[in-house]
Amino acid sequence: MSGSTFGTIFKVTTFGESHGPAIGAVVDGMPAGVEIDQNFIQQELDRRRPGSKAAGSTLRKESDTVEILSGVFEGKSTGTPIGLLIRNSDQHSSDYSQLKDLFRPGHADWGFHAKYGFRDYRGGGRSSGRETACRVAAGALAKLLLRRISQVKITAYALEIGGVRCQNIDLEQIEKNPLRAPDLSAAEKMAERIEECRKNLDSCGGIVECRITGVPAGWGEPVFDKLDSLLAQAVFSIGAVKGFTVGAGFAAASSTGSVNNSAPGAAGGIRGGISDGDEIVFQAAVKPTPSIGQEQLMPGVDGAMHPFAIKGRHDVCIVPRVVPVVEAMAALVLAECALRQRCAVVSENSN
Amino acid sequence: MSGSTFGTIFKVTTFGESHGPAIGAVVDGMPAGVEIDQNFIQQELDRRRPGSKAAGSTLRKESDTVEILSGVFEGKSTGTPIGLLIRNSDQHSSDYSQLKDLFRPGHADWGFHAKYGFRDYRGGGRSSGRETACRVAAGALAKLLLRRISQVKITAYALEIGGVRCQNIDLEQIEKNPLRAPDLSAAEKMAERIEECRKNLDSCGGIVECRITGVPAGWGEPVFDKLDSLLAQAVFSIGAVKGFTVGAGFAAASSTGSVNNSAPGAAGGIRGGISDGDEIVFQAAVKPTPSIGQEQLMPGVDGAMHPFAIKGRHDVCIVPRVVPVVEAMAALVLAECALRQRCAVVSENSN
Amino acid sequence: MSGSTFGTIFKVTTFGESHGPAIGAVVDGMPAGVEIDQNFIQQELDRRRPGSKAAGSTLRKESDTVEILSGVFEGKSTGTPIGLLIRNSDQHSSDYSQLKDLFRPGHADWGFHAKYGFRDYRGGGRSSGRETACRVAAGALAKLLLRRISQVKITAYALEIGGVRCQNIDLEQIEKNPLRAPDLSAAEKMAERIEECRKNLDSCGGIVECRITGVPAGWGEPVFDKLDSLLAQAVFSIGAVKGFTVGAGFAAASSTGSVNNSAPGAAGGIRGGISDGDEIVFQAAVKPTPSIGQEQLMPGVDGAMHPFAIKGRHDVCIVPRVVPVVEAMAALVLAECALRQRCAVVSENSN
Amino acid sequence: MSGSTFGTIFKVTTFGESHGPAIGAVVDGMPAGVEIDQNFIQQELDRRRPGSKAAGSTLRKESDTVEILSGVFEGKSTGTPIGLLIRNSDQHSSDYSQLKDLFRPGHADWGFHAKYGFRDYRGGGRSSGRETACRVAAGALAKLLLRRISQVKITAYALEIGGVRCQNIDLEQIEKNPLRAPDLSAAEKMAERIEECRKNLDSCGGIVECRITGVPAGWGEPVFDKLDSLLAQAVFSIGAVKGFTVGAGFAAASSTGSVNNSAPGAAGGIRGGISDGDEIVFQAAVKPTPSIGQEQLMPGVDGAMHPFAIKGRHDVCIVPRVVPVVEAMAALVLAECALRQRCAVVSENSN
Repeated sequence: MSGSTFGTIFKVTTFGESHGPAIGAVVDGMPAGVEIDQNFIQQELDRRRPGSKAAGSTLRKESDTVEILSGVFEGKSTGTPIGLLIRNSDQHSSDYSQLKDLFRPGHADWGFHAKYGFRDYRGGGRSSGRETACRVAAGALAKLLLRRISQVKITAYALEIGGVRCQNIDLEQIEKNPLRAPDLSAAEKMAERIEECRKNLDSCGGIVECRITGVPAGWGEPVFDKLDSLLAQAVFSIGAVKGFTVGAGFAAASSTGSVNNSAPGAAGGIRGGISDGDEIVFQAAVKPTPSIGQEQLMPGVDGAMHPFAIKGRHDVCIVPRVVPVVEAMAALVLAECALRQRCAVVSENSN
Repeated sequence: MSGSTFGTIFKVTTFGESHGPAIGAVVDGMPAGVEIDQNFIQQELDRRRPGSKAAGSTLRKESDTVEILSGVFEGKSTGTPIGLLIRNSDQHSSDYSQLKDLFRPGHADWGFHAKYGFRDYRGGGRSSGRETACRVAAGALAKLLLRRISQVKITAYALEIGGVRCQNIDLEQIEKNPLRAPDLSAAEKMAERIEECRKNLDSCGGIVECRITGVPAGWGEPVFDKLDSLLAQAVFSIGAVKGFTVGAGFAAASSTGSVNNSAPGAAGGIRGGISDGDEIVFQAAVKPTPSIGQEQLMPGVDGAMHPFAIKGRHDVCIVPRVVPVVEAMAALVLAECALRQRCAVVSENSN
Repeated sequence: MSGSTFGTIFKVTTFGESHGPAIGAVVDGMPAGVEIDQNFIQQELDRRRPGSKAAGSTLRKESDTVEILSGVFEGKSTGTPIGLLIRNSDQHSSDYSQLKDLFRPGHADWGFHAKYGFRDYRGGGRSSGRETACRVAAGALAKLLLRRISQVKITAYALEIGGVRCQNIDLEQIEKNPLRAPDLSAAEKMAERIEECRKNLDSCGGIVECRITGVPAGWGEPVFDKLDSLLAQAVFSIGAVKGFTVGAGFAAASSTGSVNNSAPGAAGGIRGGISDGDEIVFQAAVKPTPSIGQEQLMPGVDGAMHPFAIKGRHDVCIVPRVVPVVEAMAALVLAECALRQRCAVVSENSN
Repeated sequence: MSGSTFGTIFKVTTFGESHGPAIGAVVDGMPAGVEIDQNFIQQELDRRRPGSKAAGSTLRKESDTVEILSGVFEGKSTGTPIGLLIRNSDQHSSDYSQLKDLFRPGHADWGFHAKYGFRDYRGGGRSSGRETACRVAAGALAKLLLRRISQVKITAYALEIGGVRCQNIDLEQIEKNPLRAPDLSAAEKMAERIEECRKNLDSCGGIVECRITGVPAGWGEPVFDKLDSLLAQAVFSIGAVKGFTVGAGFAAASSTGSVNNSAPGAAGGIRGGISDGDEIVFQAAVKPTPSIGQEQLMPGVDGAMHPFAIKGRHDVCIVPRVVPVVEAMAALVLAECALRQRCAVVSENSN
């Protein structure tokens, strides 16, 4: 009940802390007969790994090799749970002992302490970005399923980083630059902005946009489990996300019905919570990572404020690494909706 | 599995269409011993009813009288499910027969048709705003629980309508004007904007902001069921919502870590998905209601586009009516989190 | 979370107490396009009503008219929740006031008091047999679904009453006698046994057996949600059930592998938790209803024991009325498993 | 959705096949602050391992060493998911290739084939008894929780094996004989019966009884999630179980209300689905394991019957090994009910 399961029919349960021996996931609900391409899962995981300096990532090595423990036989899913294991190779708990009695600003530290009465102070624990590796691995399985039952294609990218916004959207460019921006010219300015932050021992955020094609009309449920409602939960469950919009988003708030009803893209591919067959487009606002090298004032368990500079390696900008996580969460939602839709009508011939 | 249940421990299941005999809800999970003030539930429902012309509402009469069918004995909850029933007094199905073969723009009509192969064309059915009356009634029960176990106070209001934004936030003003704006001067301009839309047979949207005080630090779960993640799902499940933000929202995307970490209100009362004890603040973008009196082009079941003007009464602006629905959904999430927190630690004395 | 929901994809939520204004159910997950025969639902409810004196039932009148509130349009399910309402016509709370401070033996009274700190002492409340009317109505919907997607036929009957066991099983006889025994000769002896109990102000129990044909091989899930596991939960959730067996049941315990592997009917149609295509057969042991007219010693809230005779009408034997409830619960389980099976394989053509 | 998750608040998800690289479990919902005694978990697992020849077990070595991957910090649960991993040391898939095209009688083989269109034919896969190791490990965690919040003690034993029934119940004897019988004299006769079966290349079953003390009155929910209902599901989810009874069980069916109401132990500690504070007693009928060395007729994928003798080691009687699994499943149910009870009343002081 600590909320580590996502989905009902396509159900993912994750476990593991950044500084324990391993993290992992159990995917229960993959239909039998799906070809499980382990290379693809590994590729997706590699996309999430710390990247180049230009992308604002630290250079530590995380191999993130995924081991499939169950649920696959002779290259295909068997219909039973797929266990996924990723060993943690790099556990330097000692780095964190000085943070034992401090609550880092912008992090879950204080909340964990208030919630559980004590906390595993070695890094973020369950709130660490490392946990998202499990989502990416599970999301890769969801993508394999979606590919098989519909021509669903999910593409996320950095629309904005450090205040620099892409002027063109060319999906071909995304994986060709470390920022995962669909606009190479914007990517250069983003890299400059990141470098500037690095020098200031600071960090920056951005906006991830996601486009999904190939979803047929009819996915999503009418009331609480609307397609956009599930996407909102999924994307907001990613640590640094502070905003989520579909289609016109906040611009719709100042539009009129006559304009908004017919504006292309205003609905974002979802009307009344149900896919309408158009391209699905949503955005997530990612805050600047709170882990920075500057000295900051931090509340302590003693109730006082303490000036403290967190040592160690910090990502300056996590936005490029959030991109594959957003895709993974979207894939989990769509796999769920695709399977639910199989139960929506008594018989396909009856319609 | 049509997604009509919300929550796990404090679990609400709704049913009913706008043009059927009744709508209702079952609240399973209310702890025993809570005083059930039926007047309060009715008052909350009355807040959702169509209001004055100034608020952009139609003037049809809906009594929306709630009947409590079970789960209450001698004024207190018994611990068993509370059944709530609201009869539909005003079913003019004939109004809708002309829409039988058309899909209204911006509505769920086409999605329903694609999903189920046919649809109840009498109004929005499950996608009608009428369904939200059940949420408000259930949310009232959640508020009664929250009031009892913590001094939680949930206040939503219209921050912006038709592009007019409040300059001051005075919570005392909200229920004193039909727009539910916390700024009377802005409310006047909003009313003008609504009147303008009415004349144009058009509609307008806005932004609802919600402030919650009294939530102790520690509510919300670390991974998929983060407090903001559940709020995002809850608020996005309200029909017209196209955007959701917490704290700094999209502004955080262009901030830096050093600024964002210490900016008052940036976190919005939730860090790492767990309440931090501060005031919780979130916003929802509400699109202009797609039901307008202008002639519009509508796709038909025949595949062609048809010019058509929807007759009947339309709300020009649903934002003031969305306000109590947003509060209700927030209350359902918080009631769930409050009860989950009871299971988070083995013993309060053990810490 | 008071456990009033059953099923995940075909999900039933019930509410209501025996002495409140109404009881009801919400069935969420009925696929769209199923013909909803309201007469059939009513007939199933009528089978659960108190019957003739010969069947050991009291003669009070309960009309148990079900009203369908939602989810059906032009005679077919729409895919949205079906709300079912049954008004309580006969609420004599005064009969029960004398039981306010006593805990009836064999009933849930003491458990409720211990659980919730107080209880609705008017009859059994949620533990009343009356609650099962909702199960029968929901089960009727499940039967309509099962009939449509497979030729599933569920037939339960009184195998044994008051120690009298049927020697022949002729399913044609079941509805021809008030005991619902498949053996008319046994039925006569059962009626005598019941009459004897009535004279003694006593009650008697029995065994309900259920046979299900038409279930294809492959329904049920491998581990926790085995078909027999779900049936066990479903049947044991009926108030008076104290035992449940499948196929050879306890006789299997003293058999050998060589014999049991090949004995016809030993598996009861379920192996490894999955239907094998054979007839499914299970039994439920029903204890004698604890409500009897004799004076009994009852613990009071004061901690002392009190001699007390419960006045009013009592069913001498509830077994014939449990028969349709067992069928209903089996139908709910099978509807769930049938829909889950739609998600088990990626594509029927892929095998 | 393959049904590999058990519980809602204390939620266990298992994965893994007998012949894959590993099996494991994720326990999500353990409250923070519980001392996690890894030795105890290992001891429980050791109780499930193949035992002595006298107990009818094969002598293969399974180390079954459990690794805790997450959720524990400095010896205490952190409130986050506890990942448990058990490597499979002994995978002889080649032993099974000859069974590729045959469906073993009494096993899930045919059901799996019908369900998924193909199957992992290496042993029982998910239906293998090996899967129960995960239940025992998770159950050990549940026991640690129950011990902490209430003095719950769960003791199961072999009441009957191969038709030999214990005449005395002395719980002290259980772990002193390989049959786990509470009657040493019966244990000797059981061992003889097992030896006889072994010589015949046959197997035998039995009855496991479970006694639970220390459960306070009030656990269990009134309707579908009755305590006995959840126990029934839990116990019936163990592969070989064909019957489940509480208290008087089937004997209640032929009793009368006046007798049954006051008979000690008739209720088995559960009335109306709620614990009454008395000792909880239930029984499970275990069929003889279908894996025997005799030549048997087996259906093949070709539709014909084939005489075949399954080679390799077989347990003659799995009853002693089922004992700790029954305890584990009972512990999972009780941990769930204990936590749910924390949400049943608004305030303990309010009663």
